[in-house]
Order: sequence, then C-alpha cells, then structure tokens
Amino acid sequence: MQATAELQLIPLGAGVSVRPQIMRVITLLQTYDLLIETHASGTNIEGELHTILAAVAAVHETLHAEGIIRIVSYLKLETRTDKPPTLAGKRL
Amino acid sequence: MQATAELQLIPLGAGVSVRPQIMRVITLLQTYDLLIETHASGTNIEGELHTILAAVAAVHETLHAEGIIRIVSYLKLETRTDKPPTLAGKRL
Amino acid sequence: MQATAELQLIPLGAGVSVRPQIMRVITLLQTYDLLIETHASGTNIEGELHTILAAVAAVHETLHAEGIIRIVSYLKLETRTDKPPTLAGKRL
Amino acid sequence: MQATAELQLIPLGAGVSVRPQIMRVITLLQTYDLLIETHASGTNIEGELHTILAAVAAVHETLHAEGIIRIVSYLKLETRTDKPPTLAGKRL
Repeated sequence: MQATAELQLIPLGAGVSVRPQIMRVITLLQTYDLLIETHASGTNIEGELHTILAAVAAVHETLHAEGIIRIVSYLKLETRTDKPPTLAGKRL
Repeated sequence: MQATAELQLIPLGAGVSVRPQIMRVITLLQTYDLLIETHASGTNIEGELHTILAAVAAVHETLHAEGIIRIVSYLKLETRTDKPPTLAGKRL
Repeated sequence: MQATAELQLIPLGAGVSVRPQIMRVITLLQTYDLLIETHASGTNIEGELHTILAAVAAVHETLHAEGIIRIVSYLKLETRTDKPPTLAGKRL
Repeated sequence: MQATAELQLIPLGAGVSVRPQIMRVITLLQTYDLLIETHASGTNIEGELHTILAAVAAVHETLHAEGIIRIVSYLKLETRTDKPPTLAGKRL
C-alpha cells in the first residue's frame, strides 16, 4: 500500500557534524522508486510502504558496512484508505 | 539559547482530516518571534529555546480551549554550542 | 542484523480513546519472533531488523483491513556493530 | 495543565556510548516535581506541562554547560481535557 514517511537518522560516534552521513542517506534513498523531499529536519518520502521499509533497512545496513558503529533513526509512517497519501496532499 | 526544532501535532477525536487544526497551529506559531517553515510532515522552527517551548505550550492550551479534547505532539529540539543552530545551516 | 526499536501508533478517526487499537497492535506484534515490552508511551521491540519492519508493515495493513481509515506511526530504530543491541542493555 | 510526556535525548560528539549523559538527564529530571519512569528507549514523564518544558530546557542548558557540544532531543507531549492524563492510565 502507498505511504508517506519522514526519516531522521543520527549516526553516533561520528562526531558533532554528521552531514556526510546524512548526504549518504539521501543518495541511498534516491536509488529506490520513491519520491524524496529533504528539509531542515529530515527527509520526507512517498511511495510503496514495503519499498520505504526496505530502503530504511538498506540505509542502516549500508552505513554500518561503511564504518558507522551506531545508528538511531526515527521513521514516521502514514497510511490511509480514504485516499492515496501523498506529500503534495500534506502541504499547507 | 538558540535552538532549531520540528513540531508535529496530532489532534485525537477530531476525525480523519486534521488540516484545520494544523492550520491553527501554524497561525499560533506565527505570533511568536520564531522562524517557521512548514513541510509535508511538520513544521520546522528556529528561535530562542524558551520561546519555542512557550509557543508549544500555548498551542496545546489554545487548541484545548477551542474544543480539541486530546492532543499528541512530537517536538524535536536541537541545540549546539560550537555555532548558532539555524534551519539554513541544516539544509542539504 | 539485530535491532532494538520503539513503536508508537496513532489511529486517526477512531475517536479520543484508542486503547482497543493499541491492544490490537500488541497482539499483532506478539505473533512475530520479537521481544516486546510495552510502556506508557509505546512498545519497545528487540529482534531482527527485517522482522521488525515486516511486523510494522503488517500492523498498518491489518488495522486498515479491520476498518481503521488513517494511521500515523512513529518507529525508532537502533542498530550497532560493536555489540548486539538489546533492550536489557539499554535499561538504566 | 497536566501532561504526560516521553523524552529521548541524544548527545552528538560524545562517542558511541552515551550512558553517562543519559544518567545525567535522569538525575536532572528528578530534581523537578515530576513523575519519572525510565524504559529501554527513553523516559516517560507525568506532571504540569510548564514544569515538563522547563525541565527539558534545563537539561539542554545544563548538559551544554557541562561540555556536551550538540544535543538532539525528542519530546512527545500528550494533553487531554476529558480526564487527567497519567502514565498509569496509559499502561496496557
């Protein structure tokens, strides 16, 4: 089913600035069939629920494989059956 | 101290569509000395930490005074001492 | 890979009290090979990352199939490579 | 007004293990007139909304004064007008 989501990821042990890791997360998300919109506090995502979850798992796995020791991520998921959830429909 | 934040608010018991309440939240936030940026999953905020927290308390209190029975809000707060935290500095 | 997680789920349009839906979420999570610990603000989870994500997807899909129109969930995921992440290891 | 809350705090730049900082957060929260319950993913809180927010601000300010350079915290706030919100009432 279609979903919208927001992903916020924090690598621990990578120092105070985590911009390189966040850039890597965006690059990884863009390899999936998902609509991606970055903002100052995270990344909004639109797409198939299972694709979103597969992408989040891959982000954790890839960052660990590339040397990040600890990752905390916050994923907000929204689904609804009365109409297709879209990022466009959630803008004010 | 200066902070950046993200606020996501969900009124419960207001039905499936909560757009009127979210619009009201934005209007309330805009009465404070804060930089406000809405996006598809919430509202990013920049300003004095205590002003942000006062605004969040006022949002809960005002929406309840206007009839909303139950409110769940998620507030992400970021502070740092090496440089002033800004929304502009967090964009990719 | 092993992960710890916290799931908080809010059904929209189900009224002010959402306890029946939260109880249903717990029942569904318990059908998976996961360690589940409920607390006053959500449910902590320990298990295989992909199993956790499959369970979260199933929770959304099942609640919708049972009549819930809109669901917002917040999933916190933690993974680390220096030692197996466990709920026991995160208690103070 | 009375509220329940959950606080999760992540110090950045403090290394992979952040247990000392989390223990410090608990100690600080306990100096306020609040009911505090720790669990594996955060700390649940019950008390006056303005006291909770004052405590969160003090946690950020104190940890910075003690040398932490960057802090990200996630605060979930719940308020309701049909009955007093309590942690006990939210347990399953």
